[in-house]
Amino acid sequence: MNKNVHTYMAAEADYREAKIVLFGAPFDGTTSFRPGTRFAPDQIRRESYGIETYSPLLDRDLEDHAFTDIGDIELPFGNKERVLDLIEATTDRILGDGKIPLLLGGEHLVSLGAIRSAFKAHPDLRIIHLDAHADLREDYLGESLSHATVLRRAYDLLGDKRIYQFGIRSGPREEFVFAREHTFFHPFTLQGIEQYLPALREVPVYLTIDLDVLDPGVFPGTGTPEPDGASVGDLIRFIHKLKGLQIVGADVVELSPPYDPSGISSAAAVKTLRELILILAEDR
Amino acid sequence: MNKNVHTYMAAEADYREAKIVLFGAPFDGTTSFRPGTRFAPDQIRRESYGIETYSPLLDRDLEDHAFTDIGDIELPFGNKERVLDLIEATTDRILGDGKIPLLLGGEHLVSLGAIRSAFKAHPDLRIIHLDAHADLREDYLGESLSHATVLRRAYDLLGDKRIYQFGIRSGPREEFVFAREHTFFHPFTLQGIEQYLPALREVPVYLTIDLDVLDPGVFPGTGTPEPDGASVGDLIRFIHKLKGLQIVGADVVELSPPYDPSGISSAAAVKTLRELILILAEDR
Amino acid sequence: MNKNVHTYMAAEADYREAKIVLFGAPFDGTTSFRPGTRFAPDQIRRESYGIETYSPLLDRDLEDHAFTDIGDIELPFGNKERVLDLIEATTDRILGDGKIPLLLGGEHLVSLGAIRSAFKAHPDLRIIHLDAHADLREDYLGESLSHATVLRRAYDLLGDKRIYQFGIRSGPREEFVFAREHTFFHPFTLQGIEQYLPALREVPVYLTIDLDVLDPGVFPGTGTPEPDGASVGDLIRFIHKLKGLQIVGADVVELSPPYDPSGISSAAAVKTLRELILILAEDR
Amino acid sequence: MNKNVHTYMAAEADYREAKIVLFGAPFDGTTSFRPGTRFAPDQIRRESYGIETYSPLLDRDLEDHAFTDIGDIELPFGNKERVLDLIEATTDRILGDGKIPLLLGGEHLVSLGAIRSAFKAHPDLRIIHLDAHADLREDYLGESLSHATVLRRAYDLLGDKRIYQFGIRSGPREEFVFAREHTFFHPFTLQGIEQYLPALREVPVYLTIDLDVLDPGVFPGTGTPEPDGASVGDLIRFIHKLKGLQIVGADVVELSPPYDPSGISSAAAVKTLRELILILAEDR
Amino acid sequence: MNKNVHTYMAAEADYREAKIVLFGAPFDGTTSFRPGTRFAPDQIRRESYGIETYSPLLDRDLEDHAFTDIGDIELPFGNKERVLDLIEATTDRILGDGKIPLLLGGEHLVSLGAIRSAFKAHPDLRIIHLDAHADLREDYLGESLSHATVLRRAYDLLGDKRIYQFGIRSGPREEFVFAREHTFFHPFTLQGIEQYLPALREVPVYLTIDLDVLDPGVFPGTGTPEPDGASVGDLIRFIHKLKGLQIVGADVVELSPPYDPSGISSAAAVKTLRELILILAEDR
Amino acid sequence: MNKNVHTYMAAEADYREAKIVLFGAPFDGTTSFRPGTRFAPDQIRRESYGIETYSPLLDRDLEDHAFTDIGDIELPFGNKERVLDLIEATTDRILGDGKIPLLLGGEHLVSLGAIRSAFKAHPDLRIIHLDAHADLREDYLGESLSHATVLRRAYDLLGDKRIYQFGIRSGPREEFVFAREHTFFHPFTLQGIEQYLPALREVPVYLTIDLDVLDPGVFPGTGTPEPDGASVGDLIRFIHKLKGLQIVGADVVELSPPYDPSGISSAAAVKTLRELILILAEDR
Repeated sequence: MNKNVHTYMAAEADYREAKIVLFGAPFDGTTSFRPGTRFAPDQIRRESYGIETYSPLLDRDLEDHAFTDIGDIELPFGNKERVLDLIEATTDRILGDGKIPLLLGGEHLVSLGAIRSAFKAHPDLRIIHLDAHADLREDYLGESLSHATVLRRAYDLLGDKRIYQFGIRSGPREEFVFAREHTFFHPFTLQGIEQYLPALREVPVYLTIDLDVLDPGVFPGTGTPEPDGASVGDLIRFIHKLKGLQIVGADVVELSPPYDPSGISSAAAVKTLRELILILAEDR
Repeated sequence: MNKNVHTYMAAEADYREAKIVLFGAPFDGTTSFRPGTRFAPDQIRRESYGIETYSPLLDRDLEDHAFTDIGDIELPFGNKERVLDLIEATTDRILGDGKIPLLLGGEHLVSLGAIRSAFKAHPDLRIIHLDAHADLREDYLGESLSHATVLRRAYDLLGDKRIYQFGIRSGPREEFVFAREHTFFHPFTLQGIEQYLPALREVPVYLTIDLDVLDPGVFPGTGTPEPDGASVGDLIRFIHKLKGLQIVGADVVELSPPYDPSGISSAAAVKTLRELILILAEDR
Repeated sequence: MNKNVHTYMAAEADYREAKIVLFGAPFDGTTSFRPGTRFAPDQIRRESYGIETYSPLLDRDLEDHAFTDIGDIELPFGNKERVLDLIEATTDRILGDGKIPLLLGGEHLVSLGAIRSAFKAHPDLRIIHLDAHADLREDYLGESLSHATVLRRAYDLLGDKRIYQFGIRSGPREEFVFAREHTFFHPFTLQGIEQYLPALREVPVYLTIDLDVLDPGVFPGTGTPEPDGASVGDLIRFIHKLKGLQIVGADVVELSPPYDPSGISSAAAVKTLRELILILAEDR
Repeated sequence: MNKNVHTYMAAEADYREAKIVLFGAPFDGTTSFRPGTRFAPDQIRRESYGIETYSPLLDRDLEDHAFTDIGDIELPFGNKERVLDLIEATTDRILGDGKIPLLLGGEHLVSLGAIRSAFKAHPDLRIIHLDAHADLREDYLGESLSHATVLRRAYDLLGDKRIYQFGIRSGPREEFVFAREHTFFHPFTLQGIEQYLPALREVPVYLTIDLDVLDPGVFPGTGTPEPDGASVGDLIRFIHKLKGLQIVGADVVELSPPYDPSGISSAAAVKTLRELILILAEDR
Repeated sequence: MNKNVHTYMAAEADYREAKIVLFGAPFDGTTSFRPGTRFAPDQIRRESYGIETYSPLLDRDLEDHAFTDIGDIELPFGNKERVLDLIEATTDRILGDGKIPLLLGGEHLVSLGAIRSAFKAHPDLRIIHLDAHADLREDYLGESLSHATVLRRAYDLLGDKRIYQFGIRSGPREEFVFAREHTFFHPFTLQGIEQYLPALREVPVYLTIDLDVLDPGVFPGTGTPEPDGASVGDLIRFIHKLKGLQIVGADVVELSPPYDPSGISSAAAVKTLRELILILAEDR
Repeated sequence: MNKNVHTYMAAEADYREAKIVLFGAPFDGTTSFRPGTRFAPDQIRRESYGIETYSPLLDRDLEDHAFTDIGDIELPFGNKERVLDLIEATTDRILGDGKIPLLLGGEHLVSLGAIRSAFKAHPDLRIIHLDAHADLREDYLGESLSHATVLRRAYDLLGDKRIYQFGIRSGPREEFVFAREHTFFHPFTLQGIEQYLPALREVPVYLTIDLDVLDPGVFPGTGTPEPDGASVGDLIRFIHKLKGLQIVGADVVELSPPYDPSGISSAAAVKTLRELILILAEDR
C-alpha cells in the first residue's frame, strides 16, 4: 500500500541522515497580477513521479543521495511578516542541523525568510539570482515587503556587489540603473557566470531561482509571463556550472499551477529541481 | 467609438444624479483555499453585456434608473487593514452623498468595510445575510479579520439578533450553535424571510450576498463550492421580497472567475445584480 | 474497421429509406457575444457515442427507425444570405423527397433557411419555439438577419398568431410586448402547451429548439447563458407531449462546444435529439 | 509542519482503533469513453479540505469518529484480473479485522473486488446500487469484466433479487428487461427504498454508489455524463435513510477529475462521502 | 479610484497631442477554422498591465511618449464590407490629423481597411508583411474578402513588388509561386530585411504583423497555429531594425485569446506592441 | 455536402491504388501517468484541415500522391494482447497488399503490433526510433508489454544493433547502459543519423516516432512531458534526411489531446505526418 505519504520523488532519507532538506512555503499573498503559486509545492511533489530520478546529463541518481522533504509550513494568509518569520525559523533549524535548506515557493517573497536565516549563519553570504525581473524595488504599491522588492531587501542585508543577477529582462528603468551599479548584473541571458566562479568558490552562496527566468513557451505557468526568456537546457547548464560552490541554501519559486494546463511548467520545475539537488548533493 | 469606458451595463448616470453607486473591491488576500475573487468586478462588468438591461420578471429596465459605476478601489495586496479602511472611506463618501453603495467583491471580508460605514451612519442597522457559510468564527487560522469571520465582526458591532441569515449549510458545529443563539438563523434554504419583513421595514438594512449561497451546479465559480445550495430563481425571488425595505447598502461577493470556465457563474452574478439594482432603485 | 464515417449514432439508413434526415449547418457568423456554435454538429455526432440508442422513458430504440445523417453543408463564412440559401435548398430537397429535415445548428439564424423552405411547402405552417430569448427583434445592430431576429423573420412569413413560444426569459421590453400581442407566448417555463395540442394536430408544425432554453447549470455550453432556465427533464417531457403532431421539420441549435469543458451540454443535446428523433419517427 | 501525510480529512485514527477504513483503487483501465477516474482518490483527499468535517444535517462530526485512510493500492495498469485480486485481498484484510471497508474508485469495475470479498464473508449479502447505468451487461465489447458488467458479475455471485437498484436512466433495452426481472429495480429517481428497509435491516448490505447517478449539472466530472439525474440533496437524503442497516462495506466510484474544471464534482463526492462515513460510523 | 477607463498601458495622451493612435477592430467574421480574435483588443489592454512600460532593450519608456488608445470600433457582425468601411474611415481621420494609426485586430482582414486608407494618403506606399501565411489568394471559399486574401487585395491596390514578406511558411503552391514573382518574398524566417532598408527609408511604409508568424510554442493563441515559426526575440529584433523608416501606419492581428489559456500569447502581443510603439514614437 | 467521411486531409485514394495506408490504434491502456492518447487519431484527422496539403520545404503536395486512411481499429479496452494482435493483423494485410502501413497511436505499445508484422515480412528489418525515452525496460510495473518496454520487445525480435535511437533524454540508468551497448544510441538530440544512411539504404527500415521527442514547449500534449527536447524544425529536417531509405512501415504515437488545450501539439503532429507521408510517397 501507498502509505499516504506525499513527497518529492526519492526524498526518502530520514531527517537525521539527510544532507538536503526540502520544504514548501505555499504563499502568494503579495502577488499582484495572477495568484496561484500557493499550489506549487503540492504540484511539484505530485508531478515529480512523471520524471525519472536518474539524470543522464550528470549520470547521477537521486536515489543515491540522502535528502528529505519535510512538507509545507502552515502559513497564515494575509500576514506576510508572520509568514517570513516562520520560513526563517524553519531555515534556522535546518542550517543549525548542518543541512542545506531547499525551499519551494510560493511567490518570490518567501525567499527573504530563507535569505535572512542564511545571512545570520553566513555573514559573508553571496546570492546568485536567476529571474526575469530584478526584484530590486524599494517598495511596490506602497509595501516594502513584496515579491517585487525581495532582492532589494536582500541587498539591504548583504550590501553592495554581493548579488549576481542573470536573465533579468523586465522592470522599470530605475531597477536596471540600480542593478548596474550595485549588483553583478547580466541581463537578458544566463551567460557570464564563469568569470565569477573562482571567487565564488571561496564564499558561502545562496541560490534563488525564480522560474519565470524561463521562456513562457516552456514555462507558461507563472504569474507574470515575460516573453523572450531562457530555455530549460540553458537553466540546467547554468546549474551544472555551479558544481563545486559552497551552496548553503537555495530556493525555486514562482511556479503557478493554475496557468499550466498541460503540466509542462511543473515538469520543468521538477527537472530543474532534480538537477539542482544532484549538484547540491555532491561532496565538496 | 467605444470610449474605453468599462462599467456595468447601463451604469451611465452622472455621479451626482445617481441614486445607487457601484464600486469594486478586487481583494482576495485572506482566501485560504482557491484565490481568484479579485478578478470578479472586472468580469462582472465585461459579462454584463451578455445579459439584457430589462427584467421581464419585474417589468423594469435598468435604463430607466439613475445609477453609476465608479470603478475599482486600488488596493494594497497583503495589507487587509488598509484594504478595509479604503472600502470604509469610499462607502462613507457615498452614504454621505445620500446614495446607496453597492459593493462588488472580492472575497467576503470586503463587506466589513462597507458594514462599518453603514453602521456609523445607521446605528440601528440590520443585516440580511445570504451565504453557504455563517462566517461567524471568532478567528480563522489565528486571524480575526478573514472571509470566515466577517459576520462575527459585524455581530461585534451591531449586537445580538440584528443579523438575519439564510442558506447557511456548512461550518463547524460551534458556528451553528452560535448562530442559533445570536442571529435569526435559517439554514439550508432561502425560506423564512416573510415573518421578519414587517419589522424590517422600520429599520435601515444592509444586504450582503455571498454568491456561494447558490448551488455549485449553477454557480461553480467560487472559492469553496458547497453542494446542495439555492437556485438562481430562489435567490432572485428572495431579492424581490425585499421590495419596500430601506436598504441603505449592499454587496455581492465571492464570484471567482478562474473557476467559471463557461461563464455561467458570471451570468448568475450579473443577473442577480440587475434584479438587486432594480429593487434598490425603487422609490419607497 | 471503422469506415471513417462520422454520423450521429444509429443514423445508418440509406437516404432513400430514411424517414428523417439530419444535416448540419455549422455557422455562427452573426453571433455577437461568444462564437463557437460552428463546432456543434461535429461535437454532437462524436459525443452521441457516449449515450445509448435506447430511450427507457419511451421504450423505443433509434436502431428500430430509419433515419440518416447527410453531414454538414459547406458554408461560406461571412456571407449569411448565401448561407441561408444553401440551407433552404437542402431543406427543399429533403421535403421534396417526402422526408423530415432535422437541422443541427450552428446559431439560431440557420433555422430561417429551413423555415422558409417548410413555409413554401406548407403555407399553413405553425412554429413551436423553445428558447431563452424571443428572437423577435426587427433588427439587431442594424442587421435584419441575425440570431436575434430569426423568429421575427419567421413571423413576417407566417403572420400573426402562428408561433407558439415557450421558456423565453430574456429580451428588451419591446420583444415581450410584441410577443404577448402576436404569438402564443409562454415565458419563463415550458408549461402551457397542452391547450394548443388539439388545434395543432390539424396543421403542419415546425419545431425549433434553441438549447439555451435550458438552465446554464445543465447546459453551460452556449453563447449567451441565461440563468434560471428549464431542466433537461422539462425539455424532454415537452417533446414527448408533441407525439401525434405533424412535425414537418425541426432544428436544434446554439450548442457552443468551446464553452462546454465537461461535455455535459453536448450530452444534453444528444439526449434531446434522441428523444426528438424517436417522436418524429412515430407513425401517425 | 505538515507531515506530508495526505489523507481524507479527519481520517486520523490509528488503523487498530478505526471502525471504517478508506482505501483507493485508482484504476480506469476498462473505461471506454473518457478515462480519468484514476485521479479520483487523490483529488478527493486533496479537495476534502475545502469542506467541513461537521454535518449540520446530521449534527455529527467526522472528528468524533474513529476512521482511517490507508491510501491507494498500487495497481498494474492493463491487467484487470490482478487489479481485482489486489482489491479483494485488501478488502479481505479489512473485513477480517472487523472493520468496514470504504473503497474509493476508480471506475466501477473496482467494486467487484470488494463485493467478492464481502460475499465470501457474508453469503447472504444484499447490494444497494445507485447509478445512472444498470451495469448488468453479460459482456461489453467482448469482455466480461468491465465497468459496464460489474453488477452482472455481482448478480452471478449473489443470485436473483439480491440487488436493489436506484436512479438507473440509461442502457440498452435488454438491461432494463433483465433488471426488471432480476433485481429490485427503481429507475429514473432515488425514490422507493423505504419499502425494503425493514427486511434489509436483517441482512448484511454492501452499498455501491456510482456518482454518475447525480445530474451532470452538479456532477459533470465523470466519464459518461447522463442528463436528468439526481441532485446532491437527493443522494444525501437517500444515504441518511440507510441509518440502522448493517452496511458491511461500501464504495464511491466514477469521479473523473479531468472533466471537473471547477471542482464541483469533487466537492459533491467529498460531501457524499462525509455523510456516508457518518452513517457508517453510527453504532447499531 | 480607477476611473473605469480601460486602455493599453501608458496610453494616456490626449488625442490632440498624441503622435500614435491605437484602436481596435474586434472582428473575426471570415475566420474559417477557430474564431476568437474578436476578443484580442480587450485582452491586450487588460494584460498590458502585466508588462512594464520600460523597454530595457531600447532603453526607452512608453511613458515618455505621447500616444493614445481610442478604444474599439463598433462593428456589425456578418457584414464585412461595412466593417472595412468603418476601419477605413477611422484610419482616414487619424491620418488626416497627422498621426500614426496602430490597429489591433481581430483577424487579418481588418488590415485591409487601414491599408486602403494609407494607400489613399500615400500612393507610393510599401507594405512590410510578417506572417505564417502569404494571404495572397485570389479568393477563399468563393469570397474575395477574407483573412486569406488580404494581402492579395493590397497587392491589387499597390501593384507589383511593393510588398515585402517575411516568415511565410504555409500555403498552397500557387501562393508561393505568386509571391516569388510579385513580392519581395522571404519565406520561413525573419531574415533578409537589411538589403531593402536603404530604399525603404525613402518611401512611406505600412507594417502589418500577423502574430501567427511566431512559433506556436510561444504564441499558441491564434486561429491556425503553424509549427516551426519565429521566436519573440526574432520578431522584436526585426521591429528594431525598422528604426528610421517612415512608418505611416501599422497593425498587429490574429491573437485569439480563447486558445491562450496561460496568457503567454497575450504577453507576446503586448510586448511586441510596446517595442513597436517605441519605434514608431521615435523622431525621424 | 460533406459526405460524413472523416479522414486525414487529402487521404482520398482508393485503397487499391494507395501506396500508403494510414490507420489508427486509439489505445492507451498501459499509460501509467496521464491517459488520453486514445483520442489522438480522431484529433489528428480533424485538425489536419487547419494545415495545408502543400509542403513548401519539399515543394511537394499531398494531393499529388495516392494514399488512404482506413480509419481506426476497434480495440477491446483492457486486453492488450488482443489489441496487439489486431494491429498486427491489419499491418499484415497492408504489407501483404504491397503498401506502406502508417500507424497513428495511441500510446507507444501499439507500435509493437506493427513491428511484429514488419519483422515477419522483412527479417532483416532495422528500426529508427525517435523518442524522449528509450522504452527499453525489461518490464514495467511487473508487465512485459507496456509503453515503456516496447523497444525492448522489438529488440528481442530483431537482435543486437538493429535499432537506431535519437533524442532519448530520460530513463533509469540501466536503460542508458543497455542502449549504449545494444543499439546505435544518440541521446539528447536528433543529430548523428548521417553516418548510418549509406548502410540503411540497403535494408528495410521501420520508423517509429514518439512525438514526446519534441520539446514540451512546442508539444505539450503528451502523457509524460520531458523538458529540453527537439524543435519541430529539428524533427522535420530529420525526416527529410530519410529520403531514399526503404521505409516499409512507420508510426507516429503519443499525442494526448486532453493536454493540448491550444491545439499546437495536434498541429505539430499533423505537419510531421505530412512531411513523413511526402517522404514515404517518393519513388525510390
